[in-house]
Amino acid sequence: MVAHPWKARVINTSGTEIADVVVTPVAFREPPLLNVAGVHQPWALRAIVEVRTTSGLTGLGETYGDAPHVALVRRAAATLTGLDAFDLHGLNARIAHAVDGVDLADRHGLTGRSTPSKTLLRVLAAFETACLDLQGQAVDRPVVDLLGGRARDAVPFSAYLFYKWASHPGGEPDEWGAALDPDAIVTQARRMIDQYGFRSIKLKGGVRPPAEEVDAIRALRVAFPEHGLRLDPNCAWAPDTAVGVATELADVLEYLEDPTSSIAGMAEVASRAPIPLATNMCVVALDDVRPAFTADAVQVVLADHHYWGGLRRSLDLAAVCAAWGVGVSMHSNSHLGISLAAMTHLAAAAPQLTYAADTHTPWRGDADVVQDPLSIVDGAVEVPHRPGLGVTLDRDALARMRDDYVRCGITERDDTGYLRTIDPAWEPRQPRW
Amino acid sequence: MVAHPWKARVINTSGTEIADVVVTPVAFREPPLLNVAGVHQPWALRAIVEVRTTSGLTGLGETYGDAPHVALVRRAAATLTGLDAFDLHGLNARIAHAVDGVDLADRHGLTGRSTPSKTLLRVLAAFETACLDLQGQAVDRPVVDLLGGRARDAVPFSAYLFYKWASHPGGEPDEWGAALDPDAIVTQARRMIDQYGFRSIKLKGGVRPPAEEVDAIRALRVAFPEHGLRLDPNCAWAPDTAVGVATELADVLEYLEDPTSSIAGMAEVASRAPIPLATNMCVVALDDVRPAFTADAVQVVLADHHYWGGLRRSLDLAAVCAAWGVGVSMHSNSHLGISLAAMTHLAAAAPQLTYAADTHTPWRGDADVVQDPLSIVDGAVEVPHRPGLGVTLDRDALARMRDDYVRCGITERDDTGYLRTIDPAWEPRQPRW
Repeated sequence: MVAHPWKARVINTSGTEIADVVVTPVAFREPPLLNVAGVHQPWALRAIVEVRTTSGLTGLGETYGDAPHVALVRRAAATLTGLDAFDLHGLNARIAHAVDGVDLADRHGLTGRSTPSKTLLRVLAAFETACLDLQGQAVDRPVVDLLGGRARDAVPFSAYLFYKWASHPGGEPDEWGAALDPDAIVTQARRMIDQYGFRSIKLKGGVRPPAEEVDAIRALRVAFPEHGLRLDPNCAWAPDTAVGVATELADVLEYLEDPTSSIAGMAEVASRAPIPLATNMCVVALDDVRPAFTADAVQVVLADHHYWGGLRRSLDLAAVCAAWGVGVSMHSNSHLGISLAAMTHLAAAAPQLTYAADTHTPWRGDADVVQDPLSIVDGAVEVPHRPGLGVTLDRDALARMRDDYVRCGITERDDTGYLRTIDPAWEPRQPRW
Repeated sequence: MVAHPWKARVINTSGTEIADVVVTPVAFREPPLLNVAGVHQPWALRAIVEVRTTSGLTGLGETYGDAPHVALVRRAAATLTGLDAFDLHGLNARIAHAVDGVDLADRHGLTGRSTPSKTLLRVLAAFETACLDLQGQAVDRPVVDLLGGRARDAVPFSAYLFYKWASHPGGEPDEWGAALDPDAIVTQARRMIDQYGFRSIKLKGGVRPPAEEVDAIRALRVAFPEHGLRLDPNCAWAPDTAVGVATELADVLEYLEDPTSSIAGMAEVASRAPIPLATNMCVVALDDVRPAFTADAVQVVLADHHYWGGLRRSLDLAAVCAAWGVGVSMHSNSHLGISLAAMTHLAAAAPQLTYAADTHTPWRGDADVVQDPLSIVDGAVEVPHRPGLGVTLDRDALARMRDDYVRCGITERDDTGYLRTIDPAWEPRQPRW
């Protein structure tokens, strides 16, 4: 391990030969954030991928930490020795062979349906990002330069608001406090915007009755008259409900995200809604593009390199959207600083991405696995000029967070199961309203 | 100028700062190849772009040689000093500013309609390719590696057959002889395949009555039972004629290329044709994608980086096609060895490109501006492992061919005007049959 890997200059092709890969699941504390499926558990899980070359470079990737996924990532990792980090088609082939058609569903269902090809792309993504990090380090260039150069120097992110409890059951109140009504949502927004300078706001909805969420958006508009606003109820609504909300908030929202489930449902809403619909739940793989776009079901797609197969395939998605006149935004799950860096390079390389990207960054406090995290200032992250992703692993933090993963007792994200420990009758109905 | 630029290793960002750009129009001899517009003039025109860095690297691009286009390329070239060769968005911005909305039509009309944005993309392409060449040289990697790695180690090309005269009017017969009937087309194919090993054959049609071209395809099928076969009449036919040919040749053709004009016309033919339709004439810019794909007008798109804005944007096109289940092939105009290298790197990086690419390479004999041209062996070009595009300028040849450009007296490709010098009544009607 080199302390600052980009100082190690390797310019011949052998400098990017993969020696081995280490996959480390980690856990970090999360507040009780509510969504349509249930509530975030006290610990969020991620896995950190270190792809090491024979020349001593380490490329970093970050992916989901659910144990079945981690097992699959490890199975794939074991097959990469000898591969050139520039050989992304070879990477795909080796990983496809290792994953071998497995179909791993997640338990929260918040990123659309599960398929074997989507399972493969989830596994691939962590390694692709790490290989791009290696490529950049090897050639002394930031990842964005390997993706066509920077279309922007800073990437805007949005304030990602959640309804939430004051504390986990039996726990101490967190610094954010409860947020279950419009006033508290505005307070949460103000706190987050004061700290990070966000200029766009996304409210995770699907938690309170639609009329209350409409009121929350209205209250945000009053408090932040210039901010872009979005609402994402994660398919909690029937089409008629969705059309009603879209109509009520037509003068306020940039877009309404996944108001209802399925391409057919979204198409029905879109045909009657006066504002754009966005999705990261009904267009989650290339196979969805043709039916969704043909049906005019969505006007914005949220890319997420973690399940679209990495940064390059996410740029492909952006190109596909642009060809169709469909907008591009960016989705986030709970993540750490490697993912923030990857999202930043991706967004910087995609001129089509004209919306502020989602990020869960504020919800994890200081928890991170990198020693030099990118900062959100004035609502944006400056695109790094350092080689590769531009972040370095903090090995002490990694060790602590790996211990937390083992100790926390959570092996799969399960928002529904967690809420049921408090409310055994909880059922994540779709639609709920 | 460094003799072997990839020996000059530059690994810091300042190594790719553009110092200046030289644009050299060149001419090389071409046989009298017939098409729907007329006949190829005795000289084909191209322009060679050398983008030189402050560190002494030279990146190569090749583009059209028509004088108005060359003037525009030069106008853009003058604005690139100080730009980083990795900054492809900055490249686009500078060139867009220089081109300033100009709309340059070509006189042959063989690559679809002209628009300001397509004019811009034609100019951009030559520089984008040169910048990718520089990037690869600077980081000691072949261009294909900067495009995501090689999806294949060798790129198949097709034997590109033409109806032709034995000689230019008043000139000596060329080595290929006349080809105006099926037997002569088979002879031409045999000669070309003997020399290059092609495994696919494309016949440029739209020259003889459709029944004769059907006979030629049938004769090729008998002579080459295993070869992929395509026919491209460049919109010479009315929809009913096109459907008739498609039906007659349904058991023989891989695809029928641009049988009729316009998206609407192609859609009509496609709805009744039993084989895929391909195009490089009705889908020539991203704006065409949605109407053409929605109408199911085409099943294969021929990419051409020279007018799609370069290699990266051509990969975007391939991604767009893949998302729609539309196939990808590759178009060719008369070109030299820089373009052959660029086409090879592009095709190698595009797994979606499953058809053998077109190339005019056999028609130019030994004429080239590179001293180390890529070779077509067994119908394919091995993807270079050298840094950048992997070809180096032959300065003596460049000087000779520049003199030929000046001397030949041709300043714009004009197949129609040239045929009219022999047949003043010639009219390139669309449709002709």
